[in-house]
Amino acid sequence: MNQKKRYIYADNAATSPLSHKAYEAMVPFLVDEFGNASQPYAFARKPKKALQEARAMIADSIGALPEEIFFTSCGTESNNWVIQGAFQQGLHVVTSAIEHHSILRPCTLGDTTIVPVNNDGIVLRDEFCKALEKDERGLVSFMFANNEIGTIEPVGELADVAHHNGWLFHTDAVQAVGHTAINVHEIGVDMLSSSAHKFNGPKGIGFLYKRRGLEWPSLLLGGSQESGHRAGTENVALIVGMAVALQENIDSLQENIIHIQDLEEQLLHGLEKKDIAFHRNGSPNHIVGNISLSFPDEDGEAILHKMDLMGINVSTGSACDSKETQISHVLKAIHLKDKFAKGTIRVSLGRMNTVEDIDKIVSCMNKIIGKH
Amino acid sequence: MNQKKRYIYADNAATSPLSHKAYEAMVPFLVDEFGNASQPYAFARKPKKALQEARAMIADSIGALPEEIFFTSCGTESNNWVIQGAFQQGLHVVTSAIEHHSILRPCTLGDTTIVPVNNDGIVLRDEFCKALEKDERGLVSFMFANNEIGTIEPVGELADVAHHNGWLFHTDAVQAVGHTAINVHEIGVDMLSSSAHKFNGPKGIGFLYKRRGLEWPSLLLGGSQESGHRAGTENVALIVGMAVALQENIDSLQENIIHIQDLEEQLLHGLEKKDIAFHRNGSPNHIVGNISLSFPDEDGEAILHKMDLMGINVSTGSACDSKETQISHVLKAIHLKDKFAKGTIRVSLGRMNTVEDIDKIVSCMNKIIGKH
Repeated sequence: MNQKKRYIYADNAATSPLSHKAYEAMVPFLVDEFGNASQPYAFARKPKKALQEARAMIADSIGALPEEIFFTSCGTESNNWVIQGAFQQGLHVVTSAIEHHSILRPCTLGDTTIVPVNNDGIVLRDEFCKALEKDERGLVSFMFANNEIGTIEPVGELADVAHHNGWLFHTDAVQAVGHTAINVHEIGVDMLSSSAHKFNGPKGIGFLYKRRGLEWPSLLLGGSQESGHRAGTENVALIVGMAVALQENIDSLQENIIHIQDLEEQLLHGLEKKDIAFHRNGSPNHIVGNISLSFPDEDGEAILHKMDLMGINVSTGSACDSKETQISHVLKAIHLKDKFAKGTIRVSLGRMNTVEDIDKIVSCMNKIIGKH
Repeated sequence: MNQKKRYIYADNAATSPLSHKAYEAMVPFLVDEFGNASQPYAFARKPKKALQEARAMIADSIGALPEEIFFTSCGTESNNWVIQGAFQQGLHVVTSAIEHHSILRPCTLGDTTIVPVNNDGIVLRDEFCKALEKDERGLVSFMFANNEIGTIEPVGELADVAHHNGWLFHTDAVQAVGHTAINVHEIGVDMLSSSAHKFNGPKGIGFLYKRRGLEWPSLLLGGSQESGHRAGTENVALIVGMAVALQENIDSLQENIIHIQDLEEQLLHGLEKKDIAFHRNGSPNHIVGNISLSFPDEDGEAILHKMDLMGINVSTGSACDSKETQISHVLKAIHLKDKFAKGTIRVSLGRMNTVEDIDKIVSCMNKIIGKH
């Protein structure tokens, strides 16, 4: 990773570096084994086998069955498939105020109730229950972990409430898969969205977990790929890269979590030691490494640009909206005061970050907003 | 390309080998320059610039403007975007009986009229005009070239008829882009779909050309990528690979066409010399190298498998349906008699095929179905 020499990459929640192992697993399917996996001849055998293995690896990593995994082009496609599919069946959708735009925007196409969250970003249980009373059945979609502030929702409990009321439950787990242990049967979700480039896999590939037996209309119609549920020539190389990256992250999950947790503490203690005033957003139960920091009366945009000049990549608001937002919908939903919200940046650490990276981040932040 | 030693690949209409130049252009964006192209920091500058350049290269190759090119995950997504978008606006769709399933299946979601074709696979003009009388306005979608038989539709003339009647015109050009000269302004289409892996680009990436000023609802909603028209983190590596592959094909388009045309003639003359009875399907005006051959009273499936054992990859029916169809909807639509339809294989040649490949194909076909 040459860029390490030039940049300290601390924007892993926006996208993450591709694992070398994943890259190496992809190359044969880009270069030599390019056959169409749906063709019946011998030259398609290796891609077909790789596809089966990747599906099994991914299923295994979330406690699902291979036939419950459907490959998509990204988290956005998975989320749109779920929400648009709900409306196509005439289902009411209940979701939260801090969902990703790939949930909230398709939700504008149909009958949706948006549940508020508390100051930590946790879905308000009473409001959720009230929303479920609006219809006899429908679809609930709450994210597993928030992309801007890292808050982990109590997805298992929320799914129980939904099911108890006869509603289906989907979770957008784009920020969570590969970063925390997930077993779809333990949490009891009907559907789950994921995206490879958030866990050191390639961009342009994701998957949807759909519980066996659950009928759901397709979003992309055409050929009979993915058991007839998602048309389009199979993107074998990227699917293999996704599976290998996920496996790698899961194999060292506890190590990664401890490593990133240490870095997180180093960062927070470092800022405290420098006497820098800040507020950390989100819930105590969060995706490690997703650190939303609000510096009162500062300008997040200005901090981002100054850090950029010092060779450090961080984010303001959410990744997809760096160009357009002043105060993101998430920071508004957690009732963050303007004086804090405007001075918010997100440092998102990954397993490839080091102690030296954090030293540099703290020292640069001190130069920008500290008393020096 | 190691597989060349093991296989003669003659299924280029199903998917094509990735150009080495395209692969080399992709690697930096897979490995080092992985930054999220929508982020504002310096580390995102190279991906962002690569995206701009790729968009300009692709636009240029079909006579469009960069802002008229929208990246998608594949041809299937582009086609679904068009058809589902038409229904979302309440538009009637007119299409042909030989379209790809990624057109025909979404067409089942709304008000559609299917126009028959003649024995060559050319849209019947009178039936088309009658279909347009059904509504004051709507969307016409006719493929540029058919995937199973190679027939090129007179898209420019058909678009004129549509526009004259106040209808919009889309063409599924998945089999045509990179294989024949296309200028969207000369043919006057409003939208055009394409997929990279059909022109030696990577799988999992495509584009939609959408005429400037034409408003069309998005299929994938979420972030503000692609000027707000297609959400999802930009797949920079694959987009760059697509642009380089297309440029390479276009730069040597005349050479490629002559080379493939020579191979096509070699194949047909070779079969004739061996006294093998066959009928070639499709129109005289076809995508060179797309050769649908019907051998009376033979079994296409059996021929495919025997050729496979001899190390040659060809197709029966269309690529996406090798598993399910006996006689494809295309062969039915051109009224091919059962005795011919059942004995149909598609040999699809690409620029990487050689004179030696054709010698081997003819000799193997002779062993399988000739009088030896």
